[in-house]
Amino acid sequence: MTGPDAPYDVHEIPDFTLECGVTLRPARVAYQTYGTLAEDRSNAIVYPTWYSGRHWDNEWLIGEGMALDPERWFIIVPNMLGNGLSSSPSNTPPPHDRARFPRISVLDNVESQYRLVTEVFGIETLPLVLGWSMGAGQTYQWAVSHPEMVQRMLPFCGSSRTSPHNRVFLEGVKAALTADAAFAGGWYRPDALPVTGLRAAARVYAGWGFSQAFYWDEVWREMGHTSLEDFLVGFWEGFFLDDRDPNNLLTMLDTWWNGDVGSTPGFGSTEEALASITARCLVLPAEKDLYFPPEDEQWAVGHVPSAELRVIPGVWGHFAGGGANAVDTAYIDAAVRDLLAMPPGR
Amino acid sequence: MTGPDAPYDVHEIPDFTLECGVTLRPARVAYQTYGTLAEDRSNAIVYPTWYSGRHWDNEWLIGEGMALDPERWFIIVPNMLGNGLSSSPSNTPPPHDRARFPRISVLDNVESQYRLVTEVFGIETLPLVLGWSMGAGQTYQWAVSHPEMVQRMLPFCGSSRTSPHNRVFLEGVKAALTADAAFAGGWYRPDALPVTGLRAAARVYAGWGFSQAFYWDEVWREMGHTSLEDFLVGFWEGFFLDDRDPNNLLTMLDTWWNGDVGSTPGFGSTEEALASITARCLVLPAEKDLYFPPEDEQWAVGHVPSAELRVIPGVWGHFAGGGANAVDTAYIDAAVRDLLAMPPGR
Repeated sequence: MTGPDAPYDVHEIPDFTLECGVTLRPARVAYQTYGTLAEDRSNAIVYPTWYSGRHWDNEWLIGEGMALDPERWFIIVPNMLGNGLSSSPSNTPPPHDRARFPRISVLDNVESQYRLVTEVFGIETLPLVLGWSMGAGQTYQWAVSHPEMVQRMLPFCGSSRTSPHNRVFLEGVKAALTADAAFAGGWYRPDALPVTGLRAAARVYAGWGFSQAFYWDEVWREMGHTSLEDFLVGFWEGFFLDDRDPNNLLTMLDTWWNGDVGSTPGFGSTEEALASITARCLVLPAEKDLYFPPEDEQWAVGHVPSAELRVIPGVWGHFAGGGANAVDTAYIDAAVRDLLAMPPGR
Repeated sequence: MTGPDAPYDVHEIPDFTLECGVTLRPARVAYQTYGTLAEDRSNAIVYPTWYSGRHWDNEWLIGEGMALDPERWFIIVPNMLGNGLSSSPSNTPPPHDRARFPRISVLDNVESQYRLVTEVFGIETLPLVLGWSMGAGQTYQWAVSHPEMVQRMLPFCGSSRTSPHNRVFLEGVKAALTADAAFAGGWYRPDALPVTGLRAAARVYAGWGFSQAFYWDEVWREMGHTSLEDFLVGFWEGFFLDDRDPNNLLTMLDTWWNGDVGSTPGFGSTEEALASITARCLVLPAEKDLYFPPEDEQWAVGHVPSAELRVIPGVWGHFAGGGANAVDTAYIDAAVRDLLAMPPGR
C-alpha cells in the first residue's frame, strides 16, 4: 500500500543535537520504504523529500518497471525535518513548539537520515541517493558527509549551495507570508491561520515554479486547470493551504536559504566540499528552472570529480522534477536507470 | 535645469473619459520637456515613464552628445497616469480619490499624451516614441493608435501585450503588498502606510528585477551596495517606500496587467494590432529579463512589418533598461542613434 493513507514508520532519536546547538528530545524521522532490503543490505536507496513534500509525494518516480523498482531496490524516503511528519514546529511539544522550533540545517536532515539508515536498517552502503529540489540539496550533503556510503548520486532541479538569487526568491515568499498580521510572529491560533499571507506566498511562488513559456503556452491545461486564475487558486493556493503549517513552511525555508555543503565541518568552501565527493554523480537541472538555473549546476559539476550534467529540456521549469508530466518523468527515470548501470564512483 | 527639483508643466484635460467609462474632471498630465520644438514642429520625441517612474527618472538617456540630444530634438516625457504627478489616487480629489480612483488602461495613458502633444504643442508627427518597461507598452500603443504620427518606435524591456507569466509575477507583488492589513482595502491613513506590505512587495520584486547571474556575480556592488541585505533594503525597500503611494502602485500595476495593443478598438487580436504598425520599429529586450524575456519580443517582432530585434546582452536583466549601468546605457543609446538615422516606416 502506498499514498497518504498508507501506514509509515517513525524512527525516534532520543537526543538529537542540531547544528544550532539545540537538542531535540527526541527527534522523530518519519519515513516510508518501498521494496525489500537484501540480506546483504546492498540494495538501499535514499530519496529525501523536497520543500513541504511528504514521502508519498515522491512515489511518482517509484514503481514496477521503473528504474526505482521495488522488486530490485529497497527505497527509503525519509521526511525532511519541518515537513509536518518528521519533527516540526507543528508537532513538537513545548518548549520547542511552533515559533520556538529550532533552526534546522541540511546537515541536520542528513544526519537524522543517517541515524535512520544505520540504526534501523544497519545499512553501510547506498547504491544511490537522489532527490528533487531541497531533496537535491540533501543528496549533495549525503555525498559530502558520507562518502564511504554513497556510491551514486542524482540531484535534480536543486543545488549544493543556495544561490544568492534563490535566496532573494525565498525572501519574497517569506515576506509575503509574514506580511499578514495574523501570522503573529508564528503564534497564530491553530484555528486562525494567516490565510491571506499563505495565499500571497502561493501567488509569489507561482511565478517561480513554472517557466514563462509554461504560462505562455497555457500548459497548466495539461494539469486539468481551466483558466490562469483557476491554476493560481486551484493548484497554488491549494498547495499552500493543504495543511502546510506556516511555521513548518518557514522552518524549511530557512533550511533551504542556508543550504551549502561548504559549511560542512572540515571544509573551507563549497568548491572544496564538492571536490571531496567520491560518488558517481549525474546532475539534472531543468532547462527553464528559474531558481535553480542550469548554469549554476554547470558550475557545480565543474567541481565534482565524477560528474555529468544533463539538462531536462522543456518548459516545465522547476516542476520538471515534480512528477507532474510524463515526458519529464520519463527523462528522469531514464537518467536514474543510466546512473544505476554505471560503476560506482572512486 | 533637470531632475526632481526642476519645475515641470501640467496639461489639464477638462473632461477626460477613460476606457472604463469614468470621466476625470479634469485629468492632469504632468510632463517635462528637453530641448526646443522646431518651428515646423518636426523634431518631437515622446518618451513615457515606466512603472512608478517619474519624468526625471528618464533623464539618463537624454543629454548633450547622446542620441536624445536636446540640441537636436524636443523630447517630451509625459508622466503615466497613476504615478503621483499625473492624475493618481494620491492626488485626485473625492469622489475619485484613493481606492476609488478608476482603472487606467495603457490606451488611456496614450490618449492623455496625445492630447498633450496635439493640444499644447500642435505636433502632428513624431520622429520617435520610445520607452522602458511600461514605457515600452505605451510605445507600442502609440504606434497602433496613431500610425499617422509615429515614424519610429523603440520599445526596450517591455511588450505589446502583458504575457501570462508577467501577470503572475504582478499577482505576487500585489498579493504581498495587500497582505498587510494596514492596507485596509486602499483606505489606509496617510500617516499609517502599509509599510510591511510595501517592504514585502519590494522583496518579491527584487528577485524579478535583476537576473540570477546579477546576484551570483554580486553586481549590486557596482551600485554601491555592501551586502545582499543592504541591496534588498537600501535599493528595493527604499524604492518602494520613496513616496510611491500604495494605491498609485496598484493603479499602475493594474494598467500593466491589462496591457494589450490587441484591445485597441478596431482590432481583433494582438497580432492584428501589431501587423497594423507602420512605424519603423527597433525592439530591445534584455537577454536575462525575467518578466519580459527576449523570446516574447521575438514573437512580437515577427508580427510587426518593419521591425528589428536586438537583444541587450549581459546580466542586468530587466534593469538593463533602467539606466543603472554605463554599458547597457551605451548599448541603448547606440540603438536610438541607429534608429533615428533610419528612414521612417511606411
